[in-house]
Amino acid sequence: MALASNLRINSKRLWDSLMVMAKIGPGIAGGNNRQTLTDEDAEGRELFKKWCEEAGLSMGLDKMGTMFARREGTDPDALPVYVGSHLDTQPTGGKYDGVLGVLGGLEIIRTLNDLDIKTKHPIVVVNWTNEEGTRFAPAMVASGVFAGVHKLDWAYAREDADGKTLGQELKRIGWQGDEEVGARKMHAFFELHIEQGPILEAEGKEIGVVTHGQGLRWIECTVTGKGQHTGSTPMPMRKNAGRGLALITELVHSIAMDNAPNAVGAIGHIDVYPNSRNIIPEKVVFTVDMRSHELDRLNAMVARLMNEAPKLCEAIGVTFASEIVGQFDPPAFDEGCVSAVRNAAERLGYAHMDIVSGAGHDACWINRVAPTSMVMCPCVDGLSHNEAEDISEEWARAGVDVLCHAVLETAQIVE
Amino acid sequence: MALASNLRINSKRLWDSLMVMAKIGPGIAGGNNRQTLTDEDAEGRELFKKWCEEAGLSMGLDKMGTMFARREGTDPDALPVYVGSHLDTQPTGGKYDGVLGVLGGLEIIRTLNDLDIKTKHPIVVVNWTNEEGTRFAPAMVASGVFAGVHKLDWAYAREDADGKTLGQELKRIGWQGDEEVGARKMHAFFELHIEQGPILEAEGKEIGVVTHGQGLRWIECTVTGKGQHTGSTPMPMRKNAGRGLALITELVHSIAMDNAPNAVGAIGHIDVYPNSRNIIPEKVVFTVDMRSHELDRLNAMVARLMNEAPKLCEAIGVTFASEIVGQFDPPAFDEGCVSAVRNAAERLGYAHMDIVSGAGHDACWINRVAPTSMVMCPCVDGLSHNEAEDISEEWARAGVDVLCHAVLETAQIVE
Repeated sequence: MALASNLRINSKRLWDSLMVMAKIGPGIAGGNNRQTLTDEDAEGRELFKKWCEEAGLSMGLDKMGTMFARREGTDPDALPVYVGSHLDTQPTGGKYDGVLGVLGGLEIIRTLNDLDIKTKHPIVVVNWTNEEGTRFAPAMVASGVFAGVHKLDWAYAREDADGKTLGQELKRIGWQGDEEVGARKMHAFFELHIEQGPILEAEGKEIGVVTHGQGLRWIECTVTGKGQHTGSTPMPMRKNAGRGLALITELVHSIAMDNAPNAVGAIGHIDVYPNSRNIIPEKVVFTVDMRSHELDRLNAMVARLMNEAPKLCEAIGVTFASEIVGQFDPPAFDEGCVSAVRNAAERLGYAHMDIVSGAGHDACWINRVAPTSMVMCPCVDGLSHNEAEDISEEWARAGVDVLCHAVLETAQIVE
Repeated sequence: MALASNLRINSKRLWDSLMVMAKIGPGIAGGNNRQTLTDEDAEGRELFKKWCEEAGLSMGLDKMGTMFARREGTDPDALPVYVGSHLDTQPTGGKYDGVLGVLGGLEIIRTLNDLDIKTKHPIVVVNWTNEEGTRFAPAMVASGVFAGVHKLDWAYAREDADGKTLGQELKRIGWQGDEEVGARKMHAFFELHIEQGPILEAEGKEIGVVTHGQGLRWIECTVTGKGQHTGSTPMPMRKNAGRGLALITELVHSIAMDNAPNAVGAIGHIDVYPNSRNIIPEKVVFTVDMRSHELDRLNAMVARLMNEAPKLCEAIGVTFASEIVGQFDPPAFDEGCVSAVRNAAERLGYAHMDIVSGAGHDACWINRVAPTSMVMCPCVDGLSHNEAEDISEEWARAGVDVLCHAVLETAQIVE
């Protein structure tokens, strides 16, 4: 059966569900603090599970606590189409982020139930554990284990700031399943996520068809000088590690600007030692974040940093050391899945454009083991990972409509 | 009686006392953690009191807990000559810092006792409470109250990181006296301190004759941008507060270099918000430390910062705000007292030079209410406020010899 352009999700129901979920783990400024494996996360999972059961889905749970809510297909041999994202949030996160992708998946199921539509392939709505990575680094850890990027035991051993491990906390909140992680085979995976950037809104588009993810390098840099007294050390005798930070901040900006619009770069995390008003910084540790969807470009940017930063430091009498602490190469999403998303936006008449995902997403890991693509919708001012994160109900509707059509084109409606 | 150039202190006894005091509140790397008004501070005070009593001194104690150990003079109408510094240390402080100045004062008394020397003016050895200011800001608080710079009640209300007040803690450790702060009149005040800078060692001098202190301005700056995602925000749309920090770091350096060798400037304290690897700094709060012993120069430096920093920020789309959070004008020490120090170094044959004190000291406040000057001795590599702080026994001897002669020239030996 061909997909009818008037097949639409129920955007009021979707929005209501988003608002009900947002009541769990409220933030202090209108957003959410529902960090992974907290009591609030458990409460959010219970609500999602209840909704899934009410929609007739059966719930699977793997050893990483990832939830898989399944609607059967008509062909017992057909692999399921997966759709979802994550319900956990940053400590001062927004209400939409990954939540829209999970509840959007649920809304597709509810819509199919309403219209009594059957599909050849089963459809499974997923909630990946610990996408954010704020409490337990790294981000996207459960999808990473699923895709074979990380070992299960290594993931279990991740510690939060209080020294509690991911494994302990997963058990404590009662969401550790028995299913082997990564045992499932997928026909395809689709993830809807807010853009977390300002491009779609600025361009007046409702839909981003995500063709690539950006590759990432996190380079932790340590500049070491001398912790001298700010008053009694003559200027020419100083070894000010803070100046190393300053020069490299501007170097990173230059490198990124020279590669814009196909790359970005910045320093978000900075620790100064001893961080006292009257002591010249002895040591500054900071992380350079560089991204591009072109692997050669990304590697050349890092090489330029590694070449120029030590020279800048040497010239001011401080030393430079660095270590790559995070990296992934740019993923190119599956052409068939990308087409399904683009076709859906066309069919539904939503203004759309191809876009590169600047942030990391579970889809970037799953892309390694299954045909994958992503749908993006705009967010106000590009703001995310912030309690002020906002989207309009219309953007949410557009995103889930497109997600629904892409899933149905892939899962195949049965007459 | 003329001062004999062979009148010398007992440097072995001095050094032994320094080492015994250093056993109280040991650090973790060879230095000391004897922060003000801790149990360790109380223990250090007890030891100093015992030594003073053994040397025949009578102990006074004021409402700020400052200790005044008095050796009588022969003239009942003569005001005392005060000598001393502070026994408290930074959390990771050195063994010498202010301790040398207090135990150096005690060593003068012990030497006079050994040689049965009497003076016209009484001599009082002082241990000022909370010079460091790390636990309870600001630094030099007791001498500040003594000099009328701060109110007693305000000083009592200063809180440490745990919310305990200076007044509570002073009472708790049992060192709150009854004497009104600042009631004492001084004939003169001398303070010996390690240089906390590298000049004397680099110049091969054993003694710094301190003619001026530096004036200081602490300007707390707040640069505000936007906490955008490091991956998904195009370069031209960024408002990176970290770049504001970078540009102002270099501006402060330029301003100081343009005024060297008569000024210094740096940023030692930096807090980045939200300080996450994948979020562009939304806000950076940092303190600019500028110093000069010339008031006009100091004010012009601050004016240049206030003029140029907002423009640099505006050009990159971030905002600049600032507040003066600490300041004192450059003190010029008393000519008579400075001469007494210089004469002493000459008489004793120590290599000496005039020097400006880069750091703040109790003497800078006392200079407002009494004729004052300072003696400095070198420290290895200019390092202080650091457990690795080091001086040689010879430097300590030279410093206390000069201190002794300056005190005796002022207190007047009686035949």
